Amino acid sequence: MTQPPLRARLIAETLGTTFLLIGVVGSGIMADRLAQGNDAVALLANAIATGCILHVLITTLGPVSGAHFNPAVTLAFRIKREIGTRDACAYTTVQIIGAVLGVWLAHLMFDLPLLQFSVTARSGPAQWLSEAIATFGLVFVIFAGVRHRPDTVPTLVALYITGAYWFTSSTSFANPAVTLARAMTDTFAGINPANVPMFILAQLCGTGLALLLLPHLWKSAAEQK
Amino acid sequence: MTQPPLRARLIAETLGTTFLLIGVVGSGIMADRLAQGNDAVALLANAIATGCILHVLITTLGPVSGAHFNPAVTLAFRIKREIGTRDACAYTTVQIIGAVLGVWLAHLMFDLPLLQFSVTARSGPAQWLSEAIATFGLVFVIFAGVRHRPDTVPTLVALYITGAYWFTSSTSFANPAVTLARAMTDTFAGINPANVPMFILAQLCGTGLALLLLPHLWKSAAEQK
Amino acid sequence: MTQPPLRARLIAETLGTTFLLIGVVGSGIMADRLAQGNDAVALLANAIATGCILHVLITTLGPVSGAHFNPAVTLAFRIKREIGTRDACAYTTVQIIGAVLGVWLAHLMFDLPLLQFSVTARSGPAQWLSEAIATFGLVFVIFAGVRHRPDTVPTLVALYITGAYWFTSSTSFANPAVTLARAMTDTFAGINPANVPMFILAQLCGTGLALLLLPHLWKSAAEQK
Amino acid sequence: MTQPPLRARLIAETLGTTFLLIGVVGSGIMADRLAQGNDAVALLANAIATGCILHVLITTLGPVSGAHFNPAVTLAFRIKREIGTRDACAYTTVQIIGAVLGVWLAHLMFDLPLLQFSVTARSGPAQWLSEAIATFGLVFVIFAGVRHRPDTVPTLVALYITGAYWFTSSTSFANPAVTLARAMTDTFAGINPANVPMFILAQLCGTGLALLLLPHLWKSAAEQK
Repeated sequence: MTQPPLRARLIAETLGTTFLLIGVVGSGIMADRLAQGNDAVALLANAIATGCILHVLITTLGPVSGAHFNPAVTLAFRIKREIGTRDACAYTTVQIIGAVLGVWLAHLMFDLPLLQFSVTARSGPAQWLSEAIATFGLVFVIFAGVRHRPDTVPTLVALYITGAYWFTSSTSFANPAVTLARAMTDTFAGINPANVPMFILAQLCGTGLALLLLPHLWKSAAEQK
Repeated sequence: MTQPPLRARLIAETLGTTFLLIGVVGSGIMADRLAQGNDAVALLANAIATGCILHVLITTLGPVSGAHFNPAVTLAFRIKREIGTRDACAYTTVQIIGAVLGVWLAHLMFDLPLLQFSVTARSGPAQWLSEAIATFGLVFVIFAGVRHRPDTVPTLVALYITGAYWFTSSTSFANPAVTLARAMTDTFAGINPANVPMFILAQLCGTGLALLLLPHLWKSAAEQK
Repeated sequence: MTQPPLRARLIAETLGTTFLLIGVVGSGIMADRLAQGNDAVALLANAIATGCILHVLITTLGPVSGAHFNPAVTLAFRIKREIGTRDACAYTTVQIIGAVLGVWLAHLMFDLPLLQFSVTARSGPAQWLSEAIATFGLVFVIFAGVRHRPDTVPTLVALYITGAYWFTSSTSFANPAVTLARAMTDTFAGINPANVPMFILAQLCGTGLALLLLPHLWKSAAEQK
Repeated sequence: MTQPPLRARLIAETLGTTFLLIGVVGSGIMADRLAQGNDAVALLANAIATGCILHVLITTLGPVSGAHFNPAVTLAFRIKREIGTRDACAYTTVQIIGAVLGVWLAHLMFDLPLLQFSVTARSGPAQWLSEAIATFGLVFVIFAGVRHRPDTVPTLVALYITGAYWFTSSTSFANPAVTLARAMTDTFAGINPANVPMFILAQLCGTGLALLLLPHLWKSAAEQK
């Protein structure tokens, strides 16, 4: 199958990451407004809405760009030599742009100031371990899915993230572009910009760990899809 | 594949839109009654019930009429020249009739006065932007799904709307017939009739935007299935 | 495809209806115990658990007995001449036995008296209309699904019922065997035995209405798969 | 199809059981923290997160090891002669190791003491019956799914467990390795170590019952795929 032109792929990555952040941040604002302090109900709504939009975006944009929407995933595909360096850099750039756009559109849709920075502290070894495990699982799930049942990848990623919102103390950002963008919203989904670097570092550790493990589950990393 | 006769298709559009509004308005009434003011739980139930019935209706009636249930979607297919002008007008007419019927049946099922008009204000640029984005996404999802994975369209639309209830401040009406009909219920899902025109205008803007974007993601709009 | 022997089919119908009632009644008891009077959360749990078990039972037992678990559905298949009179009577008998067994097992699992009768009033034209519409929809969904996408029937029925718990004032019993059995539990899912006959009558009206409508959507009722 | 080497299968069973317990215990801790004593919302989040991770793990690791993650399931496959004694013992060993690892990782992610023992009493005939029925259903669902629709097994198991959390008074452990590991966490999902043996005994009774019933639904147990 010949790939779509880079321009179409970059539009897809931008659009997807924009809508992903609209989903994450928008549903967080709505849930927080309605939940009257009941954070369990708020996180449930946030997790379900995020899973829904992820499934939709990966199904519809996967055939165009592969639906990474995540620099850690793009990096993993780069290391596996399934995307070139130039394309990977372009992907990462538009993922960050799309993510910030998504946050800003969510602010506009909820009548909030465009430019914000979060004061929500998300730090400490427990949360860093959470991000490493969350991203390990995400990368593992994507590569295992692509290998065995490519048509199930949208479902796998959506359900994985919906679950991971609950089983990690960090609520599973698992995505450097998402982490950066969520520093720019002082709402339910926000993270203090000072806590961003360690989150991203933990995510990259999880990515590396997944790439190290994968060949042990299947005969050869080279034959990967 | 030859199309079913227009009469069967119009029955399908009527039945589908009727049940869609039963789903949206009925579950809103039930959720509101049981939730004791906890609007997050009410919206969660409302969003899940709407997603469930959408999935069911699109799967069962899609093979008959295409399962538009939405004048904005019918208009998009008209612009793409996949439905004729006369059929599109007939679809839109029965969608509105079906939607109002659905609202009335919901009122009867919950022992409420048949004829009502909502006093719930839903207005302002934030909500209009929400409707434009919600409808943009809906039209995008339908056309992308039809193109790449037609069998997933029921799932895509159901999950998209379940998510969009949460990530827009307007709770994503994204449908002119639904908007008109929801003006006729003074319950959880209602909208003040005075606010309807701007909602519909925003929905049409979103539809147009999606049609403008789609050809940039795939080679040619003409070859759109 | 030759049918499995009647004995295997009757075991399947019994087992399925037993587990369906375990699901409906058991999750109702659990939800009611934990929800501390928040009936919206209780019904959400009840609806989700019911949808889950329905999907599982129809997928696993459908290949054996057709997974009716519902005398109204068996009657509809009898009218469509897809099951004989003797088999239909046997199905209905074991559906009722299985349903009562399921209620009793739920009572044992939650340490409640085995034999109970509900005092929950569920009556009046609004609830009867609800049951007629709920059963109309259920029968429509099953026949439309079997015709166009047989592999989706478990999903369709599960999602339909999950949604219908919310969009009808009766919470959609839509099943005479389930209605009879739920009269025998004075818990969340119960119904006063005196209210059972009108519920069943309404369900049969809905079934008839669906059978009348179906041929108008597809060319000929005779060719119904 | 030739099986992957035992080493890869044991890595898969370990990884899967580890993540399963991260899912069960981690989401329990998060839900309990956020729910402010509303146990219905906590169990709903716990059930949804568990279903999500189960679906993901069975889809991704099923092609490697069969995705048992459960000594009762491994025993059932041993009795059906689909796995050898030596492999079954190895599976069971790594399932227990993986489960304990998962509990500990969940503790680390939520900044809790590594080594804990639960004081939550889960005992009495009602709960034992619950575990027997829950495991009966799980084993039945797996074998029926594998026989008729192998591609649906991840969905079947995930939905079954999500439902069974609600319709049994024990919240459906249905897994000896999970039961042992949950004795080692004094959080939402915990079980007093003294109550473990009877839970496991009940689970094995349920497993046996399912194996006795299965041949009655299909012609011959020997032909079981």
